[in-house]
Amino acid sequence: MAAESATSRKTKAGADRPLRVGIAGLGTVGGGVVKLLTENRDVLLQHCPRAIEVVAVSARDRKKDRGLDLSQLDWCDDALALASHPKVDVVVELIGGSDGPAKALVEAAIANGKHVVTANKALLAHHGTALALAAERASLGLAYEAAVAGGIPVIKAMREGLAANRIEHVYGILNGTCNYILTQMRETGREFADVLAEAQALGYAEADPSFDVDGIDAAHKLSILTSVAFGCAVDFDGIRVSGIRNVSAMDIVYAEELGYRIKLLGLSRLTEHGVEQRVHACMVPQSSVIAKVDGVFNAVVTNGNFVGQNVAIGRGAGAGPTASAVVSDLMDIARDRILPAFSAPAETLRKLPSAPVGRRIGAFYLRLMVVDKPGVVADIAAIMRDEHVSMEAMIQRARQPGGPVPIVLTTHETTEAAIARVVVKLDQVEAILEPAHVMPIEMLA
Amino acid sequence: MAAESATSRKTKAGADRPLRVGIAGLGTVGGGVVKLLTENRDVLLQHCPRAIEVVAVSARDRKKDRGLDLSQLDWCDDALALASHPKVDVVVELIGGSDGPAKALVEAAIANGKHVVTANKALLAHHGTALALAAERASLGLAYEAAVAGGIPVIKAMREGLAANRIEHVYGILNGTCNYILTQMRETGREFADVLAEAQALGYAEADPSFDVDGIDAAHKLSILTSVAFGCAVDFDGIRVSGIRNVSAMDIVYAEELGYRIKLLGLSRLTEHGVEQRVHACMVPQSSVIAKVDGVFNAVVTNGNFVGQNVAIGRGAGAGPTASAVVSDLMDIARDRILPAFSAPAETLRKLPSAPVGRRIGAFYLRLMVVDKPGVVADIAAIMRDEHVSMEAMIQRARQPGGPVPIVLTTHETTEAAIARVVVKLDQVEAILEPAHVMPIEMLA
Repeated sequence: MAAESATSRKTKAGADRPLRVGIAGLGTVGGGVVKLLTENRDVLLQHCPRAIEVVAVSARDRKKDRGLDLSQLDWCDDALALASHPKVDVVVELIGGSDGPAKALVEAAIANGKHVVTANKALLAHHGTALALAAERASLGLAYEAAVAGGIPVIKAMREGLAANRIEHVYGILNGTCNYILTQMRETGREFADVLAEAQALGYAEADPSFDVDGIDAAHKLSILTSVAFGCAVDFDGIRVSGIRNVSAMDIVYAEELGYRIKLLGLSRLTEHGVEQRVHACMVPQSSVIAKVDGVFNAVVTNGNFVGQNVAIGRGAGAGPTASAVVSDLMDIARDRILPAFSAPAETLRKLPSAPVGRRIGAFYLRLMVVDKPGVVADIAAIMRDEHVSMEAMIQRARQPGGPVPIVLTTHETTEAAIARVVVKLDQVEAILEPAHVMPIEMLA
Repeated sequence: MAAESATSRKTKAGADRPLRVGIAGLGTVGGGVVKLLTENRDVLLQHCPRAIEVVAVSARDRKKDRGLDLSQLDWCDDALALASHPKVDVVVELIGGSDGPAKALVEAAIANGKHVVTANKALLAHHGTALALAAERASLGLAYEAAVAGGIPVIKAMREGLAANRIEHVYGILNGTCNYILTQMRETGREFADVLAEAQALGYAEADPSFDVDGIDAAHKLSILTSVAFGCAVDFDGIRVSGIRNVSAMDIVYAEELGYRIKLLGLSRLTEHGVEQRVHACMVPQSSVIAKVDGVFNAVVTNGNFVGQNVAIGRGAGAGPTASAVVSDLMDIARDRILPAFSAPAETLRKLPSAPVGRRIGAFYLRLMVVDKPGVVADIAAIMRDEHVSMEAMIQRARQPGGPVPIVLTTHETTEAAIARVVVKLDQVEAILEPAHVMPIEMLA
């Protein structure tokens, strides 16, 4: 072993010329990467004697003032030129989008023998398995620490630090925009639309907020986490996704009163019936770790069969955290530390069946808007009894005879199928004015 | 680059015989490692095609029933025999202790060209730099993920995942026994001695609890974190250490009332005057992440100049979590992923000066036991005014004319030197019956 390591060391030391990087996309993150490589150059060299140097860049507008000195770098008007640039060893893809130029660039880079570092979760969610296969066949790195949970080194943790474990489940707060909105709603009592508008004005939410608030961004990230956790093919289409548009200020107040907090979570679990991947708003106990992660912070909770629960919390977006993750990937490549992208070799990644939705067991919160008149509660209770759904708590605070008032119920554990049947029956009760507002309760530690 | 990686890949693939492990120490952790390697064999092979096999073991009592099948393994009565065992590639040192057999074994293993994986924080705190130097000169791995924060992959996170950052400070709950005792004290209102006795009866604390409750174990771990964070020599002697014996049930009640929680923290910070390393009980805001880490859980908070705050929470001890960390180190070695032990190459590690204690700025909590008579508060206030220490809050709840009552003060930011002078002067006030009970307040996020 000693001799072996020494040899391998020598090989690596032989690679003493700098690792040369081409960056596609010079927005917030691209600028952050250039800035980090400059400002922390001494720190990087302390960890990794091989220098990392940006040699070429590509972005839409060459004239834009980014506060960066790009005079020494090759400028490529077409990002695709980086894929065949003779000086480039690694292409850093920061264009974004699941298809189009980002996909073309990554595919061409791999075809031309260049490593790829990307922050593009949409690309990996849709094409991760195929890209990993191409990279691994060419003995190239496809690294993407920045794509999930920004600055938190969660891919490294799951793929290396916790790699000795059979992962049982993983879940997390994967979208900072949603967590910020939900935190603001709770702290100010305002409604979703109002807080979203403010977040957009402040630049915390996009003009088109759909990717964030409808849970798609979180689902992209969850599909990647699932693959790394369970060594299976990335299966974005296997995720049940809903967002936070339907969370009302009223639900947040009831959640607090019941000892819960509302979070948009991505959850993935290996069950005997297949993989269960879900992204949705849910109630979690106020005492749980995840309940206390507020604002733009992300968190990922991993459960392994030997290590137990591991929690990682940090900033999920922004120039600094994302650049930190991108450069840590570059350092791994500079040290020739290349691993299969999704923990198991890509050629062994299989698509696992999705666990059937209806059989999932969990507790639920239901809010019903009813006409306040005698007999309504009896009707509701009868429906639940008939479907064998057992009630855990009921709140009917505001009395407003004849008017619409909320009745809030929480259930003990039951199946999703049973809740679906309850909801259909409740909808037929005349005194119930709106479809039931339903939210899963996740009894997390 | 592609060709280079392919070559290196081939070299690694060439190492297709198993990585052969010799384990010294078959207590809880050693048994856990053997169990993990057996039960999770399929998971390990998925991540790391090179098998990891235990070939030899050493422990005190060969006849003890450990519930493990050791029949296929070489048994060494003397652990030192593992260091020269012809079949062993890696020695896993789980003996413990800063000197004696553990040190002899690790030194001999390195001298004989064998990699070392250890969970021994005491050994690294006292001899880490020298051992790293020996290992690196021989191109061998010296890996110790299990030595700090048990199952949390915090060494990997700092040395690789966050390696692109200039680390500004790192702190954490590094001793589960202390955190368990403090949590129990808070939840039950009981005194330290009482809870300690119970923890000993339950097996959560050692018969001789000094290493834990006097902060020494936490300091061992902090010295390692400091070295990894700042790329300096391990300097255990540079740590100011105190434990939790002096934390009283009364202080815990006041902390709650003031919006704080008492934790034993290890804190390390790079200042312009040198490295500041401290282990002591302190008050932290109830809203801080670290305040909410209860029971036997550990937590490490790292602040990097680009990534911002990163928090990792998990189990700091026990067979499963520790085995998880030990085996993740073995997987890195099996894949020939060997890095300098303390992030920077050992030959570059320098001892940094310790920051002078008196100049440290922070807020403080003081509890004074006084005779309840007019004029005492005026005396205290005058002393603080004279030393330019500004009061933030004062509580004098229980009135008991003529009897001893507590007066609790918190200060705004001041220097440790000023607080020391205040304490000396308070000690001279006749109506103050005991030396002041002083505790730093750490305004953590």
